[in-house]
Amino acid sequence: MKKILNIGIIGYGTVGRGVLKILEKNQLIAIRKSGVKIKIKSICDIRPIDKPDLYVDNYKTVIKDPEIDIIVELIGGYEPARTVITEALKNGKNIVTANKAVLAKYWDEIFSLAQEKKKLVYFEASVGGVIPVIQGLNEGLAANEIKKIKGILNGTTNFILSKMTNEDMTYEDALKDAQKAGFAEANPSADVKGLDTANKLAILSSIAWGSWIKVKDIRVKGIDKLSVEDVKIASDFGYVVKLLGSAVKTDNGVDLWVEPCLIDHHHFFATVHNEYNAVMIEGDASDDVVFYGKGAGQLPAASAVVSDIIDLAKFIATETAGEVQNVIYSKKKNIKFLPHGKSKSDYYLRFSVVDRPGVLAKISGILGEYGVSIASLYQKDRNKDKKVSIIITTHRAVSEKVAQALEAIDKLPIIKAKTVKLRIEG
Amino acid sequence: MKKILNIGIIGYGTVGRGVLKILEKNQLIAIRKSGVKIKIKSICDIRPIDKPDLYVDNYKTVIKDPEIDIIVELIGGYEPARTVITEALKNGKNIVTANKAVLAKYWDEIFSLAQEKKKLVYFEASVGGVIPVIQGLNEGLAANEIKKIKGILNGTTNFILSKMTNEDMTYEDALKDAQKAGFAEANPSADVKGLDTANKLAILSSIAWGSWIKVKDIRVKGIDKLSVEDVKIASDFGYVVKLLGSAVKTDNGVDLWVEPCLIDHHHFFATVHNEYNAVMIEGDASDDVVFYGKGAGQLPAASAVVSDIIDLAKFIATETAGEVQNVIYSKKKNIKFLPHGKSKSDYYLRFSVVDRPGVLAKISGILGEYGVSIASLYQKDRNKDKKVSIIITTHRAVSEKVAQALEAIDKLPIIKAKTVKLRIEG
Repeated sequence: MKKILNIGIIGYGTVGRGVLKILEKNQLIAIRKSGVKIKIKSICDIRPIDKPDLYVDNYKTVIKDPEIDIIVELIGGYEPARTVITEALKNGKNIVTANKAVLAKYWDEIFSLAQEKKKLVYFEASVGGVIPVIQGLNEGLAANEIKKIKGILNGTTNFILSKMTNEDMTYEDALKDAQKAGFAEANPSADVKGLDTANKLAILSSIAWGSWIKVKDIRVKGIDKLSVEDVKIASDFGYVVKLLGSAVKTDNGVDLWVEPCLIDHHHFFATVHNEYNAVMIEGDASDDVVFYGKGAGQLPAASAVVSDIIDLAKFIATETAGEVQNVIYSKKKNIKFLPHGKSKSDYYLRFSVVDRPGVLAKISGILGEYGVSIASLYQKDRNKDKKVSIIITTHRAVSEKVAQALEAIDKLPIIKAKTVKLRIEG
Repeated sequence: MKKILNIGIIGYGTVGRGVLKILEKNQLIAIRKSGVKIKIKSICDIRPIDKPDLYVDNYKTVIKDPEIDIIVELIGGYEPARTVITEALKNGKNIVTANKAVLAKYWDEIFSLAQEKKKLVYFEASVGGVIPVIQGLNEGLAANEIKKIKGILNGTTNFILSKMTNEDMTYEDALKDAQKAGFAEANPSADVKGLDTANKLAILSSIAWGSWIKVKDIRVKGIDKLSVEDVKIASDFGYVVKLLGSAVKTDNGVDLWVEPCLIDHHHFFATVHNEYNAVMIEGDASDDVVFYGKGAGQLPAASAVVSDIIDLAKFIATETAGEVQNVIYSKKKNIKFLPHGKSKSDYYLRFSVVDRPGVLAKISGILGEYGVSIASLYQKDRNKDKKVSIIITTHRAVSEKVAQALEAIDKLPIIKAKTVKLRIEG
């Protein structure tokens, strides 16, 4: 049994400093839980840091250090993170990372290498911040065939949507507030356009189905085009708008998407506010299980990183890390995907029309032609632009049929703006 | 590396049959995840079973079988479960159990023995049914000093409370419905009087603080004296009544209790219905993390048992099971408890009084004398018994002060029935 475990941290930003804080404060807890003393031997960053005795300016020195057992990659982004992880694996190191982008993009390379080198890659902090959802899905629900994964996986967009909902803010104003509060980056594109959620959904799906599910297999729609008008109408109807990532096994393949959705306000997801995340996983035996917690923030993210280190430490202590892989990945396993147009849902549709008799008959006529059946209908008072809004919710309909109907409807001269279409979930 | 892992099941009831179902259906998943083939070698029960080739009539044969790696104890209750677990450990077996009663009562004996024999005892199914909360608390949040644990931990009482809330049923009628639906036993006492919740809270607290926290350290109040009148009034005030188990670290010791509480209907716990369970855990770094899922039912419980087997299998495959313990337990670690009377909360109080001037002044006067300050006050119309109900919610108050005030108030001739006192939480 090893008595001391050395770690090297590469990338010393907010989360890295959180890792040091926790390992210092809860040192005894970590020793009791892992059976070994966890020691930070080196920290590498492009700039010198406030711990000169630990500072190393070249990551190659860290990943080649024979005394180091675990490399904690906290750089983020694709490069040099990918090189750090793969070179560290080749040097016989185990990895802890919080990097969803690199995992989603290089899943095959990273986990093929981990298998080959018999090392472990842990990445709890990459999805859902503090929430132990990777472990929950991979181990806690290990007995199950996974049927569904649905989640609010991005703190930035959830913060913005909470502001739009509770304070009637426009998307632009809410984004500015999120940036001020430190919950959105100067360039928020990866978050608001849904890519970050897609990365996380790809990771969860890859674990669930034992193959590499890529971001390009996911239909992604962000919240950057969302109008506060729809958030308000949704609220009047008893719904809250949330950006969901969803992966559902259907008879015709896995249905994968990221989209802003209307959630019934009685549903659990409606109670997830601001930077919180939540993930629902449904297994064939477990039924639905939900995990909830802070998706962002220094200590929540660092909590996940340190918990990974402690977990890994148990295997390193007995020198068996990697003999059994944590991630089951097979290049050969082909996953069948549901074509995007075949996805089924109830829909919320908002038509901007001129106030003229017969408009409704035209719209409902075309919806009918495409087999889209109406569940409820509501006409909103003429607004200051002299536009009238007609809101229709549909019964379960096929996505491409709804799209085709809207394409036909939007060509009519009575339509004043592109029709809004949002899924209704939960 | 071991290639085949043999398990022996002792106690073949609903959950045991569920374990077989899952291991059969999801055999390939189990092999891929654990790296070994999991084989049921023997099943022991007091009655012959429908699998004659696996049936063994004496548990001693099973726990002494040198080919068996894991004993799955599914008998329930104290004996012979305790003997099966301890004798199996002595025979060098690892254990998976769903038995909260035996763990809460014999924590010291079982985990001292596991340490001594370097074997593992896994017990995910003992708390929260399918929810991977033991693992979440023990591993996923391993980096944290635990501050709080709060949970809806008993499906039977939650089913009864859901019926009382949604269908205005009395406790007695709701209990009958729960029994019909298979969610309450013929003798429901352990559930409705809160003992089952206390067992589970004792287990979670023992893990959280690394010592043995006993049921006798928990102040326990069940739902069997709960009146539907209070459930209705709570609902009018925007609250839902739930049986909570709570363990909170305060400056003066750990505050442990099980009580029916009023929960704000916006709070997450208010969305937990019927047989579902939910647990909130707060760590110093993680902040609040919530786990939610089915607390009862054949497949949910069996999902937790089989996931434990798969997890254990990884250590057994590499022959390192027990070298690092999963449960950190030290006999020597003394936990300081907050005296029950010192617990603080907002309270809901319902006074049954005669309809006479000056009554309110008397009640509020005595509350004031004991330092209990009123947050809101409401007088309900005289009911058919000609009783008047006065409902008072208090600001944060010390439990024993409230109790002393009520003792004084209940002696007054204007009081027609014992005053109802419920905590307000969340």
